[in-house]
Amino acid sequence: MSSLSPPRRFLFGPGPTQIEPRVYEAMAKPMVGYLDPFFFQVNEEVRLGLQQVFGTKNDFTLAISGTGSSGMETAVTNFVDPGGKLLVFSAGYFAERIAEMGRRHGAVVIRCEKPWGETFTEAEAREALERERPQVAAFVHAETSTGALQNPLAITKPAHELGALVIADCVTSLGAAPIRVDESGIDMAFSCTQKGLSCPPGLSPFTVSPRAEEHLKARKMANSVWYFDLKLLSEYYGAQRRYHHTAPVSNFYALREGLAAILDEGVERRFERHARCHAEFVRRIEAMGLSMHVAPGHRVPHLNTVRVPEGVDDALVRRTLLAEHDIEIAGGFGPLAGKIFRIGVMGPLATTEGLDQFFGAFERCLAVAGAPAVRM
Amino acid sequence: MSSLSPPRRFLFGPGPTQIEPRVYEAMAKPMVGYLDPFFFQVNEEVRLGLQQVFGTKNDFTLAISGTGSSGMETAVTNFVDPGGKLLVFSAGYFAERIAEMGRRHGAVVIRCEKPWGETFTEAEAREALERERPQVAAFVHAETSTGALQNPLAITKPAHELGALVIADCVTSLGAAPIRVDESGIDMAFSCTQKGLSCPPGLSPFTVSPRAEEHLKARKMANSVWYFDLKLLSEYYGAQRRYHHTAPVSNFYALREGLAAILDEGVERRFERHARCHAEFVRRIEAMGLSMHVAPGHRVPHLNTVRVPEGVDDALVRRTLLAEHDIEIAGGFGPLAGKIFRIGVMGPLATTEGLDQFFGAFERCLAVAGAPAVRM
Repeated sequence: MSSLSPPRRFLFGPGPTQIEPRVYEAMAKPMVGYLDPFFFQVNEEVRLGLQQVFGTKNDFTLAISGTGSSGMETAVTNFVDPGGKLLVFSAGYFAERIAEMGRRHGAVVIRCEKPWGETFTEAEAREALERERPQVAAFVHAETSTGALQNPLAITKPAHELGALVIADCVTSLGAAPIRVDESGIDMAFSCTQKGLSCPPGLSPFTVSPRAEEHLKARKMANSVWYFDLKLLSEYYGAQRRYHHTAPVSNFYALREGLAAILDEGVERRFERHARCHAEFVRRIEAMGLSMHVAPGHRVPHLNTVRVPEGVDDALVRRTLLAEHDIEIAGGFGPLAGKIFRIGVMGPLATTEGLDQFFGAFERCLAVAGAPAVRM
Repeated sequence: MSSLSPPRRFLFGPGPTQIEPRVYEAMAKPMVGYLDPFFFQVNEEVRLGLQQVFGTKNDFTLAISGTGSSGMETAVTNFVDPGGKLLVFSAGYFAERIAEMGRRHGAVVIRCEKPWGETFTEAEAREALERERPQVAAFVHAETSTGALQNPLAITKPAHELGALVIADCVTSLGAAPIRVDESGIDMAFSCTQKGLSCPPGLSPFTVSPRAEEHLKARKMANSVWYFDLKLLSEYYGAQRRYHHTAPVSNFYALREGLAAILDEGVERRFERHARCHAEFVRRIEAMGLSMHVAPGHRVPHLNTVRVPEGVDDALVRRTLLAEHDIEIAGGFGPLAGKIFRIGVMGPLATTEGLDQFFGAFERCLAVAGAPAVRM
C-alpha cells in the first residue's frame, strides 16, 4: 500500500486548527515507554506549561488520554454524584452535552437556558443558583457552537457563595484566550489540544482547584468510569507513578512541543496576537457588509461566528472553500444551522497574512454562492 | 524552550513497542479536519485493515479514541447492563480490570479464577457458565500480565450454547498473533495500537459481531458513558457522518500506516515471523538455563514471560538494561512481582538481529545482577 498522502489544508474552522511545524516534528521523534523517566519529564513539562496557559497554580493539572469530550466526562463523573444536582448554564450545543453526560450519569440535571449565542449575567446566574442550590454548576467558557464567551466570574461568584463547585468547559479557549483559572474561581476546567494549543487532537488538558481536590479526596464512591478516575490518574502522574493506562506518548510529545512554542512566544503576547486578529477580522467582515452573530464584548476572539447573508447557500460556500482553496471552515448546527459560518483564526494562521489568505478566498466563494449584498 | 529530544530506546517490553519508521512519517503529515473527506477515506482504510488483522468480516469495526483500556470500558458499558451478570475468566491483571469496570458499572460480577499464567479449558468454562448463566462472559486473549494465551473457543463455544455474549480483550494479541474473531466466535473484541500493530498508543481498535450489534440495537437504555457510546460512534463513523467527538486525526494516520505496513508484509506472514522469533527466543532462554513462566502451548508468541532466576534482583536487571543498553523490558506485578521478566519481541524488533541485540544485552545485565546459574 502506498504511503498516506493527505491534502494540505488551511484549517480555519473551530478545530482541529493549523499545527505548529515543530509539533509535527515532535511526533516523529522516538517513542519511549509510559514508565520511562523521559516520559515523566515530558509529563512534568506538560503540567507546568498547562499551568501557564490555564493561568493557575493548581498542582493537580494533567492531560486526560482522550479528546476534549473525554475531559468533559472526566469532570462530570468525578465531581457530580449520581442523584446529585447539576445546574448547567446552557446557551449552546456543548452545554447541552454536559447536561446529557450528567443525565446519563444519574445526576438531577437542571438547565438554565438562553438563546444560542448569548451569555449569562451574574444576576441571572445567582437567581438560578439560589433557586436550585446545585452540588455542581457547569458552564462553557468559549461556546464552540455559537462563538460566545462567558465571563467565568458571573457564574463562579454566586456559585461559591452558595457552596457549589464549578466546572468550566474551556475546550475552545485554552491557549488562545485568557482563562485565568485561579482569578476566575473555576474549580475544574477541561480543554482539548487541537484548538488554541495548535496541536493534534487526542488529549484533554485538565486542572483541579485545591477546593475541588479536597472534595475528590473526601468522596467515598469509586468513579463509575475507571478510565476517567482522577484518583487513579493522580497516582500514575503523581510521585507514585503507579500504572493506570498506557499514556499516548506521541500525543504528549506533541502537546509538550505546542506548549513550548506558546511559552517561547509568551502567553500574554499570544493572547494579544489573537485579540488583534479578531479586531481586524471583525473590521473586515463588517466592511463587507456582513455581521457577527454574537454581541460585541461577548465574542470568543479566535472563533468568529459570522451571519450567513440572506440568499446565500452556506454549504456551497464551505464546499467551494475546501475544493478550490483547501480552506476548511464550519457551518452552524442546531438552531444555528444554515445561519452562521464558524471561522477560527488561531495559532499559525492568526496573522495578517492568514487573514489576507482567508478573506481573499472567502470573498470569491461568497460571490460564487450568490451573495448580492456583499461589498467587495 | 529547546525542542523535544527523546532518548532512542529499544522497546522490548509489553508495549509501547518499536514503531515502524513509516508510521512516524505519517504522523508528521498535514492534519485535516475530522469531517474532511480525506479523514473518512483514512478511517475506511483503517476499518478494512482492522478487519484483516482481527480476522473478521464484521462491518462494525472501528477505533475508539482512547487507549486500550478505553476499549475495555467501551465493551463493558455497551454490552453489560447495570444489574446484569458478567462472568470474567480471570488468571491475570487485565481480567481483574474488566471485573473492576463491571463492578463500577453496577453489574453483578462473578470471577472464575485460576493462578496467574494459566488458561481455562472448555470444561472449566462450561462448568462456570452453566452455574452462573451470565448475560456476558469476558476473557483475556493474550494476558499482558502473565504471557498466557487463552484459546477463545474454550469460552465462546459453551457461552454461545448458553446464550451469553462474549467480550475478548485482544490488547496484546492484535497484529502479532492470529485472533480470527469470526472463527473464534468472539462477539466484541478490543485492542490497542502500541503492541502488535507497531503504532503509538492512543486508539483502541474495536469490532462487534452481527449478533452483538443486534443486541446493541435492541438495547433501550442509553450508554452511561457518552464518550464510549457505540450507537453514537456508529453514526459518526457510518454513512451519516454525524458529529460525535473530534477524532484524533494523527493517531488515525499512524494506525492507517501501521496497518498498511502489516498488509504489505502479509498478515499471515507477519504472524509466522512472530511465531518463529518466539520459538527462537524460548530456545535461547532455555539454553541459558532459564525457564518460561507459562506452559508450552499456552504462550503469547510475542510477549515472553521468563522466570527471574533465584537470587537475581529483577529491578536491577531492568534498570541496567535501560541505562546501559537503552532497552526497555518489564517486570511482573501483583502475585508475579519480582518473579518474571516480561519481554516483548514485536514488530520491527521481531527479527534474528533483534533477538541478537536483546540477548547480548540481557546476558550481560543478568551477570551484573548476580545470576550465578546462567550459562553464558
